Formats: sequence, C-alpha cells, structure tokens
Amino acid sequence: MSGSWLDAVVFDEHGLVPAIAQDAGTGRILMFAFMNRESLALTQASGYATYWSRSRGKLWKKGEESGHRQRVRAMRLDCDGDVVLLQIEQEGGIACHTGRESCFFRQLITQDGEPNWQTTDPILKDPSRIYSS
Amino acid sequence: MSGSWLDAVVFDEHGLVPAIAQDAGTGRILMFAFMNRESLALTQASGYATYWSRSRGKLWKKGEESGHRQRVRAMRLDCDGDVVLLQIEQEGGIACHTGRESCFFRQLITQDGEPNWQTTDPILKDPSRIYSS
Repeated sequence: MSGSWLDAVVFDEHGLVPAIAQDAGTGRILMFAFMNRESLALTQASGYATYWSRSRGKLWKKGEESGHRQRVRAMRLDCDGDVVLLQIEQEGGIACHTGRESCFFRQLITQDGEPNWQTTDPILKDPSRIYSS
Repeated sequence: MSGSWLDAVVFDEHGLVPAIAQDAGTGRILMFAFMNRESLALTQASGYATYWSRSRGKLWKKGEESGHRQRVRAMRLDCDGDVVLLQIEQEGGIACHTGRESCFFRQLITQDGEPNWQTTDPILKDPSRIYSS
C-alpha cells in the first residue's frame, strides 16, 4: 500500500473516501460507495473496483458474488482530494443490487404540483437470480 | 419543507446527504457536495442547486458569488435513498473553485510503473477574477 498517489487522497475520520462509479462509455452514474486506503490500492493494482462495505465492515470486491465486476478505465480525484471518480466498464450491464443498470433509477417528477420519486428504469435481472449461487 | 419526497431521502447522522452534480448535456461529473433537508427543498423549489457548506456551516447557494449557478434539469435518488444526483446546466461552464469546468481535473496516470495524479484540465478563468467582486 505504498505510493505517494495514495497520500494525495484525503480520507475522512473513518478512513474512507466517497467513490462515484460512472460508465466510461455512456457517462451514466451507476453507483456510489466508499473506499478505504486498502480498497483504493487494490482497485488500482487489480484494475477492478474494490470498495469498503460500511454495513459489513469489510472489503467489498464488487461483482465477487454477482459476477458484475467493474473494470476500471480511469480514476479521477477532485480538487479537495476527498472524492474519487471511477470510470468503469460494468460487466453484465448491471451495477445495482436491485438488478438495474444504475442505482439512480428514481427521478423526481412533479405531477399536479406534487414532486415524487418515480422509478424510471427497468429491472434487467431478478436479484434472486443474481445472488442465487 | 413539507413533502413526502423529502421523507424518502435518508440523511446521515449530521442531517446530510451526498450530492453529485453532473452536466446534463455531456454527462461529465462536475462536483460533489452535501445537502441538508432545507437545501434539497430549496433546490427543488428554485430550480437551482443549493448545497450545505460543511466548512462554513451554512447554506451554499452555488454561484451566488461566482455567478456559476447550476440550473437543475433532473434530480435522481439512489437505491438506498442516501445519495442524490443532480443533472444540471452549469452556467459559465465552470463548476470548480479553481476555475476549471469540473472538480475532477486530476487523473491517475501510470508512467514508468508509478501511478500519479496528473492535472488533465485547463483553468478556464483565474479564480481571482471569479471571486473578485
């Protein structure tokens, strides 16, 4: 986990940095997660996205169960050094655990003066079939 | 600040939710910031992005000083309800306080086996001219 590039990343008080995953081809935002120093180093070394699961308290090799790995095409860092952007190829075309392409499948749409989150994206694969193995 | 759509948003222990601003036209990620319930409500009501500045501890009407306002074309919410995506038109074409289009102006590039963050984007306007007024 050496490397001055890692020292340029500003981790928060929990040792984490937010990471945005964007489809390198279409530009669509696919998901948002967190990384610690180790997951960031592993992502760079392996070429596949590894996050830190806050709920499980362990490294999360994206796609390890689902097969929906994320091949990293580029990594970017913001002006403050405290947010990482991954430009990726999404294997299987599904990033979300709901079986959708993107986790951002709800849009705020106003009807009769009332804004509401409406689901705009289809389920591409039943989650029970993604995680059945 | 009424509205059930706001109740669907999961704020963290500080009352904040991460917000990603994406250029609605090009798909480029422009910046990342936080919102509280009030800033989210104001953003929806005004059609322009308002964030919560953690460093200043107050509402941050993006572009109030710089003129670089963000016209919101669409708002999206992720599967867990704890991240907001704003698809915006960036007035002035500059989202970053460094005078660049995007805050993500550094890319990890490996040369001679050594990865380093390299600045890939030009400064479009000198920050001293953005914030001089």
